Amino acid sequence: EIVARLVERRRPRDLEGVRFLVSAGPTYEDIDPVRFIGNRSSGRMGFAVAAAAAEAGATVTLVAGPVHLPTPRDVDRVDVRSARQMHDAVLARAGASDVFVAAAAVGDFRPRDIAPHKLKKATRDSGLELSLVQNPDILAEVAALDPRPFVVGFAAETERVEEYARAKLERKRLDLIAANEVGAELGFERDDNALLLLWPGGREALERGDKADLARALVARIARLRATSGGVNA
Amino acid sequence: EIVARLVERRRPRDLEGVRFLVSAGPTYEDIDPVRFIGNRSSGRMGFAVAAAAAEAGATVTLVAGPVHLPTPRDVDRVDVRSARQMHDAVLARAGASDVFVAAAAVGDFRPRDIAPHKLKKATRDSGLELSLVQNPDILAEVAALDPRPFVVGFAAETERVEEYARAKLERKRLDLIAANEVGAELGFERDDNALLLLWPGGREALERGDKADLARALVARIARLRATSGGVNA
Repeated sequence: EIVARLVERRRPRDLEGVRFLVSAGPTYEDIDPVRFIGNRSSGRMGFAVAAAAAEAGATVTLVAGPVHLPTPRDVDRVDVRSARQMHDAVLARAGASDVFVAAAAVGDFRPRDIAPHKLKKATRDSGLELSLVQNPDILAEVAALDPRPFVVGFAAETERVEEYARAKLERKRLDLIAANEVGAELGFERDDNALLLLWPGGREALERGDKADLARALVARIARLRATSGGVNA
Repeated sequence: EIVARLVERRRPRDLEGVRFLVSAGPTYEDIDPVRFIGNRSSGRMGFAVAAAAAEAGATVTLVAGPVHLPTPRDVDRVDVRSARQMHDAVLARAGASDVFVAAAAVGDFRPRDIAPHKLKKATRDSGLELSLVQNPDILAEVAALDPRPFVVGFAAETERVEEYARAKLERKRLDLIAANEVGAELGFERDDNALLLLWPGGREALERGDKADLARALVARIARLRATSGGVNA
């Protein structure tokens, strides 16, 4: 522990005083008191980004969906469950942040109504139509703030990764996007990953590696992009 | 550890040689490669029943949905994800079991189709209709086997617990049902719980307690009911 702290002290802490806001994990949208719509995000990437930013000296707040992960050292954590709870927790803090890293896999849809009691099967072999409505777009709302933090999005795609991610970068007016390919064996619920970083006019492919190493490379890229675009209000 | 083993040896092992099949945890029904419909079951009750049965000398197989729990000692574990996978794993083993404890919270519904790629939002503010179909009724299928194991069901209800549970006991022709009331503060995702045991002609209320203690009381009740109704093929 002492050795680890000494080693850490020797790392560049070039984000000293920079306020990071990181969202992580899935959101769960309740259908009734027992059922919900979730997604496969484990939260590991967002937690690794929060840890890497804190390690580099940043002041870090982590807004976490339902995950089974310990809070990284020197990180303030806010736990939420639904997309609307995550929206409220993020928007309450985004204006006072220098960097927002949206690593959470926020559910795009939620049931139109939450049933107050557990839904019962009506008859044998009957089906059910579930009406879903869109959740607020947290990333777009943060990107629309003025002044706004440096905004980093993620794109988990099952196909045409770079094309979809570049389109999302432009459509949502992000400063940086981290894209990865997901499928049965990639991305979610794993410790390692590979990331493609895209920003206006640039790209960097990060080779498959430990999520902690990828998070450090991502945080270093954020620091460089902020420095070249003119500092704290980049 | 040695002391624990000595203490355990002195407990009655009155289920020596009895073959238990226990299902536990939630099932997850995929909507697309990243989204799914899940439920709040933590799997703790089913895992505790498997542990209690093994402790009492039974030969135990545990069919587990996606949970974050270690396998109890002396228990064979089979991991599954969806209701259909759980159905296949249970039905393959139920005929050769003396007792089936259905502690899993099996999803009643699954999406009619699993999308091969991640669903995209069509337009801003557009909704989505999700068509759900019923999953197989594992408990009813096991209860319909001839010869069949001693069949134990669970009922998690948000209201009118005893009435709904007694109706389920009769409708599904169970030998025993363990009912509990669930809500924001009860039942799911907790270590303690309270159970109401109902069987044809009898009832026993188990006071709120540790899930391990409740599981031992449930397993003891199973042993007594099997003994009074004539033994191994009860």
